[in-house]
Amino acid sequence: MATDQAQSEQRDETYEQFEERITRISNVGNAAGILRWDQEVVMPEAGTPARAQQLSTLSSISHELLTADETGELLEKLESDELADEQQAAVREVRRQYDRETSVPQELVEEISETTANAHPTWKQAKEDDDFEQFAPTLEKLVELKREYAEHIDPDADPYAVLFADYEPYLDLETAERVLERLREELVPLIDAIQDADVDRATDTFAGTFDDDDQEALARDVLDALNYDWERGRLDTAPHPFSSGTQFDARVTTRFEEDDLLGSLTSTIHEFGHANYTLGLPDEEYGTPLGESRDLSVHESQSRLWENHVGRSRPFWEQFLPTVADRFPELEDATPEDAYEAANQVYDDNLIRVEADELTYHLHIVIRFEIERALISGDLEVEDVPEVWNDKYEEYLGVRPETDAEGCLQDIHWSHGSFGYFPTYSLGSVLAAQLYAAAEDDLGDLNDDIRAGEFDDLNGWLRENVHQHGKRYTTPELIEEATGESFTADYFLEYAKSKYGELYDLEDY
Amino acid sequence: MATDQAQSEQRDETYEQFEERITRISNVGNAAGILRWDQEVVMPEAGTPARAQQLSTLSSISHELLTADETGELLEKLESDELADEQQAAVREVRRQYDRETSVPQELVEEISETTANAHPTWKQAKEDDDFEQFAPTLEKLVELKREYAEHIDPDADPYAVLFADYEPYLDLETAERVLERLREELVPLIDAIQDADVDRATDTFAGTFDDDDQEALARDVLDALNYDWERGRLDTAPHPFSSGTQFDARVTTRFEEDDLLGSLTSTIHEFGHANYTLGLPDEEYGTPLGESRDLSVHESQSRLWENHVGRSRPFWEQFLPTVADRFPELEDATPEDAYEAANQVYDDNLIRVEADELTYHLHIVIRFEIERALISGDLEVEDVPEVWNDKYEEYLGVRPETDAEGCLQDIHWSHGSFGYFPTYSLGSVLAAQLYAAAEDDLGDLNDDIRAGEFDDLNGWLRENVHQHGKRYTTPELIEEATGESFTADYFLEYAKSKYGELYDLEDY
Repeated sequence: MATDQAQSEQRDETYEQFEERITRISNVGNAAGILRWDQEVVMPEAGTPARAQQLSTLSSISHELLTADETGELLEKLESDELADEQQAAVREVRRQYDRETSVPQELVEEISETTANAHPTWKQAKEDDDFEQFAPTLEKLVELKREYAEHIDPDADPYAVLFADYEPYLDLETAERVLERLREELVPLIDAIQDADVDRATDTFAGTFDDDDQEALARDVLDALNYDWERGRLDTAPHPFSSGTQFDARVTTRFEEDDLLGSLTSTIHEFGHANYTLGLPDEEYGTPLGESRDLSVHESQSRLWENHVGRSRPFWEQFLPTVADRFPELEDATPEDAYEAANQVYDDNLIRVEADELTYHLHIVIRFEIERALISGDLEVEDVPEVWNDKYEEYLGVRPETDAEGCLQDIHWSHGSFGYFPTYSLGSVLAAQLYAAAEDDLGDLNDDIRAGEFDDLNGWLRENVHQHGKRYTTPELIEEATGESFTADYFLEYAKSKYGELYDLEDY
Repeated sequence: MATDQAQSEQRDETYEQFEERITRISNVGNAAGILRWDQEVVMPEAGTPARAQQLSTLSSISHELLTADETGELLEKLESDELADEQQAAVREVRRQYDRETSVPQELVEEISETTANAHPTWKQAKEDDDFEQFAPTLEKLVELKREYAEHIDPDADPYAVLFADYEPYLDLETAERVLERLREELVPLIDAIQDADVDRATDTFAGTFDDDDQEALARDVLDALNYDWERGRLDTAPHPFSSGTQFDARVTTRFEEDDLLGSLTSTIHEFGHANYTLGLPDEEYGTPLGESRDLSVHESQSRLWENHVGRSRPFWEQFLPTVADRFPELEDATPEDAYEAANQVYDDNLIRVEADELTYHLHIVIRFEIERALISGDLEVEDVPEVWNDKYEEYLGVRPETDAEGCLQDIHWSHGSFGYFPTYSLGSVLAAQLYAAAEDDLGDLNDDIRAGEFDDLNGWLRENVHQHGKRYTTPELIEEATGESFTADYFLEYAKSKYGELYDLEDY
């Protein structure tokens, strides 16, 4: 007994040291998060050189703390101990990060960091000049460096799978691929059918010009309506809307364009979904993996659930349109059905991912996924990217970009060296549908709630089944726990077909 | 020759390592500065617990980096080398900080930090309840801990001198004391004479209520007028106005009270002075002591110079009053002389330091200086503070506080454990006058410039003689370099007597 107790005390002490260490790392990361928010939202323009240095220092301190021998020793000790399930989960998460970061040589990390820092302006200029050639050598270099990076982490794995795991560590690439393939197979004909449909749908409900200040007031209205916790958050504008923070302080940004009221509104709801996830993490686990959100797909499932399943639903517009009309009297005569149709318009000539609708969006992603996979595997040469890009747009979406600026140069991601990031957008939407279906399975049809502006049940369900767990479960476990099933595209496709089948009077859907 | 070259290369390499290390420390400190700005200006209220942890982590990382053996070894190597003057100065500054931080045991640092964290709410409550007894035990504890702290740093020195040196490392306490004594000796009779003067001076020029948004517009006007660099700064509001940042990003905060237009305006100019100093530090020395501002007195000299010598001058009001009247038409009939008189009113019944005028302010400081010195030396018991405080107010200012809330509980500083901070406010004003006189000595009378809204010459002089040096010179050296004299109260007293002698028609001044 005495020995047992001594062992247990020893274990508690080791775990405490471990927790102190990882909380420290987490504090440094959260400080960097504030610096980045500041940079995007309020920093004077000349602040960049100093800010870059501050962020680089924080990032290398965080790396050093994580990869220090002490961390490795603590992990080893804890892994040979009998820990509570939650503690085991925290150890699992840190171990994974530790192994990855210790396996990549510091010089390579720095080379990637320098190359991407220079890649950003090069890409921007190439896009401005509509000249892929300018960007090609940099892209080639980045592909090479990221291949090398993946090789260090796991020489036996498909390098693209290793890169994908940076953004989505627990969903294996085969699953992701299967889901994306199904999206392509089933959405291409659905979109074709919509494009051929001969129906008259409201498209210009939100046409017009709308004052920024009134749009901001409306953005606050919608956050109020969704019960955003203003004591733990705020709304600002940023050129590229994002959400960031912790469970104590999760902020939303949005942007206002005078001719795109609907875009600003849906972007605000989207970012609310991200922030709302962060706010649902347990306070008492701040600083440990149990108080941190799961990875990109789960995060995107939360933003897409609120943006699409709530914000693009018919009952939402029945409820919210009067508020919009209060701010913008020119919308007084619009009906909720007009708003619903306009918010769910499927485009037949859009080339730009960030302007895509709920359906075509996924084909933009599939194209990027197929191209970046082939780039990393070496099956596709950088110089061939523009042609392959344009061919795929023609094949899947029926439109062909006339310039690379609105083709393969449109997105920032590759200039960041982010290969494997794009799929998580689609996986998030797919997961949103699966979670929403599971919530309705437990709570019953949610349309009446939404029509009444009542979101407590839905949010309570998300808190209980997703948010409060932090990184307690791996992503597949979390999905299984929350929905009783493994990850599947069934619910998304069902949702897409039934919603758009009805909207566009499609016979076969 | 070969050996010389090898030595010189070795030295350069060591210096480079040193610079890398201190830039890192500086980046961590500047990151913490952004987190504090965020906390005061934009953070949602519930963010406090996480923010406290983030700041505490950054502060302990910074402490560990500074006090690490590697820092000590680099300092030793560099001190035995022949360095350029600027490099020697950087080494001197880091050595000083290193010696201080390594001499205080970490447990004591943590105890002080915990005690002050708890002292703040205790002080706040005591002030609210007007009950000194509530705060007395905490104050006693803080006095004890700070004495112990001083003992570790230099057991042979006057402990108050050691504490003072935390805020003002190079001005010795005797100099400070001499200056403060002269202020008391010469200002008490001057203020008496003003209070006895039988003249009719405009006091209600700025009476009224003023809209916040218009006040903000005016604050931007005045920053425009002073050539504040908006590309490297911004203006926000904070409950206690401050300025913070680096040469790339130096921000101003202010506050607006509807019945205190003048207070907001002078506070904005004051904070501009601080930010303007920071913006004058050399870009290329960012992260080293040569790119950091000198200590509190020099900083305060910059804020007071702009606030008092510019912002409370007659030509300033001749120039700026029309702008004020543009924002506030109710001031259309005021004359520049009215504004000048109102901005320089000397109060005869004010008990509150932060509401004091340019003259009585220093007696508020002298009182605090005398009391905290006696507390630290043990000549005064904490329980006797209220009575001594009230007696001194009666003696020096002719008013006696009726409560401790508006007496010895009014300031936050002691609850922070900041003993030795107050004097720097007065020393800064005194230095402002000395610098302003030296600038006029070089540039000629500046009244015409100010009347024309032309500040380039004055600011150029400050850039050249003060800002650009960073911490290159110690404070006494800097004063000597800039003014050709050692630190003296002569110019301040001359300025005070001539200005207020004229304003209040005093015969003997």
